[in-house]
Amino acid sequence: MKNENFFGAIEGGGTKFICAVADEHNAILREMRVPTALPQATLAACADFFLQAQHDLGELTALGIACFGPLDPRPTSPTYGQILATPKPGWENTDVLGFFRTALSTHLPIGFDTDVDAAVLAESRWGAGQGLSNLVYLTIGTGIGGGALVNGQLLHGYAHPEMGHILLPVHPADISFKGVCPFHGTCLEGLASGPAIEARWNQPAASLPQNHPAWQLEAHYLALGLVNICLTLAPERIILGGGVMNQSFLFPMIRSELTRLLGNYLQMPQIADMENYIVPTGLAGIAGLYGGLALAHQALQNQQ
Amino acid sequence: MKNENFFGAIEGGGTKFICAVADEHNAILREMRVPTALPQATLAACADFFLQAQHDLGELTALGIACFGPLDPRPTSPTYGQILATPKPGWENTDVLGFFRTALSTHLPIGFDTDVDAAVLAESRWGAGQGLSNLVYLTIGTGIGGGALVNGQLLHGYAHPEMGHILLPVHPADISFKGVCPFHGTCLEGLASGPAIEARWNQPAASLPQNHPAWQLEAHYLALGLVNICLTLAPERIILGGGVMNQSFLFPMIRSELTRLLGNYLQMPQIADMENYIVPTGLAGIAGLYGGLALAHQALQNQQ
Repeated sequence: MKNENFFGAIEGGGTKFICAVADEHNAILREMRVPTALPQATLAACADFFLQAQHDLGELTALGIACFGPLDPRPTSPTYGQILATPKPGWENTDVLGFFRTALSTHLPIGFDTDVDAAVLAESRWGAGQGLSNLVYLTIGTGIGGGALVNGQLLHGYAHPEMGHILLPVHPADISFKGVCPFHGTCLEGLASGPAIEARWNQPAASLPQNHPAWQLEAHYLALGLVNICLTLAPERIILGGGVMNQSFLFPMIRSELTRLLGNYLQMPQIADMENYIVPTGLAGIAGLYGGLALAHQALQNQQ
Repeated sequence: MKNENFFGAIEGGGTKFICAVADEHNAILREMRVPTALPQATLAACADFFLQAQHDLGELTALGIACFGPLDPRPTSPTYGQILATPKPGWENTDVLGFFRTALSTHLPIGFDTDVDAAVLAESRWGAGQGLSNLVYLTIGTGIGGGALVNGQLLHGYAHPEMGHILLPVHPADISFKGVCPFHGTCLEGLASGPAIEARWNQPAASLPQNHPAWQLEAHYLALGLVNICLTLAPERIILGGGVMNQSFLFPMIRSELTRLLGNYLQMPQIADMENYIVPTGLAGIAGLYGGLALAHQALQNQQ
């Protein structure tokens, strides 16, 4: 390692890309935002930022790219580093990783993964999941997505998980609601994302008061999703983030509904201690860039 | 390693324990069955079998115990090796692993895990999942249970998964059926296990003809469960075993229903090749003992 290390991070979202350079203690030295336009323009602006930073500060030690999906996060795959079938115009099959390898350096360790995979890694290193090897991060916002750490490694099979789309029973009081997911209707995202709440109650989720019945139903659906995630992944902790979870009064509602739905089936100390089982992010406001940084650190370690 | 290796395997089920000793090519040299009575008697009979085998053949190289659950499969846990909260009289908190350590040898490498975890490991070594690092084995019989390999390792979090109990939407044509799971009613096991089929149609599953509507509904529920398992674990292949799957005509029905339910959402080559994605066990009739042998081989490798 050099005397001084600089880690690059990209938080690639559907509306903007945020780039940053941090020192090895995660202090952000500089930062830049660019709208998500067509890939060539957006990615070139990001590369220019890092080239300028390298000119001013010194060579990057590693780069991490936490990107919207679906994407191919498997290093052994022929399409590794690419964005896959996205509805975002122009981005399908974009080789994001290849672009930065060419623009920066073919020798630079670069990590590439989904925003939620990056988030669960960052939470395990610096946030609400420190010390745990089996962890889930679920974001509940415009969509619902999840990343998982299993035995200390990111869960990738044929690709990254898409646990926001698991199919759930519709609540009897909600039977007329058809869900907002264009693929599955009443999957978790179709029932419990921000747009689902807005579609069901005809007003934005954030404008609904705490005593509105919307929230009990929301807690129910999120708890249903968490039951299935618990039973399938047996995580030691589940971290909930995303815009909907800014309604922090949801946490106790979700915890008690999850306890009820599990029906005393899982007699595990982790689950009995529900306050420490279902928790908010430990990286509020900085989770995105920290995700990129976590991927950068992991890429460096994988190379060493 | 010695010149000649002998691997011990235990298939510990709710009605009987089967013990075997095999050579390193899995040729079974001797075998013994004993009813699952109270733990002390059953485990002592198993230990006697292995002691006699060691006397006749030579020392065991390793032992693998594939056992009914719930149990604690985590080596770092204080209750590692024990059966947990089981309804089976006398077996709760039985230290199965500790019993064999004491009865045989404290130095013997011993693997201990659930029957389904052992099965997915055996399938990945010698059966229908060879060469794959991300694999699910699901048994559909008296109950429904699943084991998963993630990044080549058995998935353990706070414990082993219990994916047979994920909650599913009840089919509109089945709305009067309350499910047979005492904990969750209409979870996957409550809707699609052998006893669920029997309770719904008032006759044993195996007696229902192939053209009975029971099977289309069964394929639907199993496919629903598989959708959620796919989206959460992203496995490269799913192996289905257990008594219900002896109705092999279910396989094409499940594959086409799974394709329909996924709604073209996962555009993965593995899933497009559905014939090689949802497959029967490659170890029919020998999966149980091979599970024990796989745990024995893994225990030896972990020690080396």
